[in-house]
Amino acid sequence: MFFEGTEKKLKLTVSEPNVSLRALGFDFWQLVVNRANAEIISVISNDHCDAYILSESSLFVWDKEVLMITCGRTILINSIQVLIDELGVKVFDSLIYQRKNEVSPELQKTTFQQDIEVLQKQLSGSFYRIQTVDSHCHHLFVHNPNKQFQCFELLMYDIDTKAICNLTETNVDKRFIRALLEIDVLFKDYLIDDYLFSPFGYSINGIKEDEYFTIHVTPQVPNSFVTFETNLSDTERYQQIVQKLLVNLNPKFWDSIFINTNLPHTYFNLDKHTIAEITSENGINVKYLHYQATEK
Amino acid sequence: MFFEGTEKKLKLTVSEPNVSLRALGFDFWQLVVNRANAEIISVISNDHCDAYILSESSLFVWDKEVLMITCGRTILINSIQVLIDELGVKVFDSLIYQRKNEVSPELQKTTFQQDIEVLQKQLSGSFYRIQTVDSHCHHLFVHNPNKQFQCFELLMYDIDTKAICNLTETNVDKRFIRALLEIDVLFKDYLIDDYLFSPFGYSINGIKEDEYFTIHVTPQVPNSFVTFETNLSDTERYQQIVQKLLVNLNPKFWDSIFINTNLPHTYFNLDKHTIAEITSENGINVKYLHYQATEK
Repeated sequence: MFFEGTEKKLKLTVSEPNVSLRALGFDFWQLVVNRANAEIISVISNDHCDAYILSESSLFVWDKEVLMITCGRTILINSIQVLIDELGVKVFDSLIYQRKNEVSPELQKTTFQQDIEVLQKQLSGSFYRIQTVDSHCHHLFVHNPNKQFQCFELLMYDIDTKAICNLTETNVDKRFIRALLEIDVLFKDYLIDDYLFSPFGYSINGIKEDEYFTIHVTPQVPNSFVTFETNLSDTERYQQIVQKLLVNLNPKFWDSIFINTNLPHTYFNLDKHTIAEITSENGINVKYLHYQATEK
Repeated sequence: MFFEGTEKKLKLTVSEPNVSLRALGFDFWQLVVNRANAEIISVISNDHCDAYILSESSLFVWDKEVLMITCGRTILINSIQVLIDELGVKVFDSLIYQRKNEVSPELQKTTFQQDIEVLQKQLSGSFYRIQTVDSHCHHLFVHNPNKQFQCFELLMYDIDTKAICNLTETNVDKRFIRALLEIDVLFKDYLIDDYLFSPFGYSINGIKEDEYFTIHVTPQVPNSFVTFETNLSDTERYQQIVQKLLVNLNPKFWDSIFINTNLPHTYFNLDKHTIAEITSENGINVKYLHYQATEK
């Protein structure tokens, strides 16, 4: 029953006034998704954004920004290649490509190193790798970073056994998972789209004006994994969300990744953590924190 | 008997054909050293380099490169300011400023953050911070990195008790320490200068053509600390040196820092470690590894 919940991520911004990424339309984005070996399952939209649930994770498209997250055995680099071919790198304002080390890297079609070789033939960029003492490893490739792109990511590993038992019951339904994640409390004004995979797995996208959040649940033990990502910038709401997720899911390890955001991380201080911070002269700030929960 | 062995480091290169850093002369470099609140103790020279033993660590000056290392309560940023004022930033080809978190940061005259604010008013640059789960923290400021500057650093913490007992005996002499460090075996063709501090502490500089090595020993428990740095590029010799130092000093923790060098680190794999790797598009590659020795 193994499923690789580990994600690859693309964050792309364009500045060309004549280019609207949304206006490229459903068929274009379906092609992009299919090239990664994924499928579009559903879509919600508001005035700012189209948010797609994919067979493996999510895609958000704004006029000038794209966030594409894929997991499983997808080949996100192939989707990036479509964007390079169709749009041309000249319209790219910034590109961030992230890849976490997989639970079963031997099942992946490409390595991060191979992906980077493809990108570096077409784009200049800096490359960062952070590997913690317990072998969690994050890779980041950054082309021409743009301070405007900001997000917060929370990656939770080894979820609480009780929560996992509930998530893997055969009759679990979406309402139960939304309640466990306290979606109605934490994201009450958001337009929501969620999907329950068979036999396991759950994805939810939410949008509110130009804000997004997305949560992906891979409950299969021994590699249970839940990811949360958002571009919200309100410190109080961020702290409330993170605390609720950590309390409800009670992971043994987790990563917090801050890209171009000043959201605080001080209230995690009780737990052992590793920090890497990068502030490049051309504008990006990435803070990566890996936590090991204190013994309870 | 506390002494802050933790080091601050400056690596500066110039490319201006008319500028020779060595030709600036002893008086100039004495001024630079004094501005950090340190003194020159002795100097050795060959056709490529002047190597100074300082009251706190070392200074190496080549025609186009400077490596300045200071420890204790020195203010290395003040020396950098002299170089900016006297040379002008236009002749700087690249600048790397490193600072490890101190054992007693409250005794330092400035923080790294304050140092960076001084530098960023005068130089563009990227800033990196790596903090491990056991709170070892490295700061790196990089202006216009130059692939030509390459070095390897080994920082060893909590040295073996037997070695420390020998190093802190009242009648310890330089020959004993050179034997402990196997200097005659590992660096047999080098021009050597070493100095024994009172009551404790030992520094050694070695040069051979344009190669350098430097070792600084702070034996005071509970914060015993030995650092090694070199620009040698021979993989076999590097492996021999690192293995000898680790075996003879048997530290509980150590850092390996690789700047623009392809020296391997794979043979450390038996120990738990954290890795951060930075490869910027303008040329620098820094690999930082923090090791915890396995229990013996």
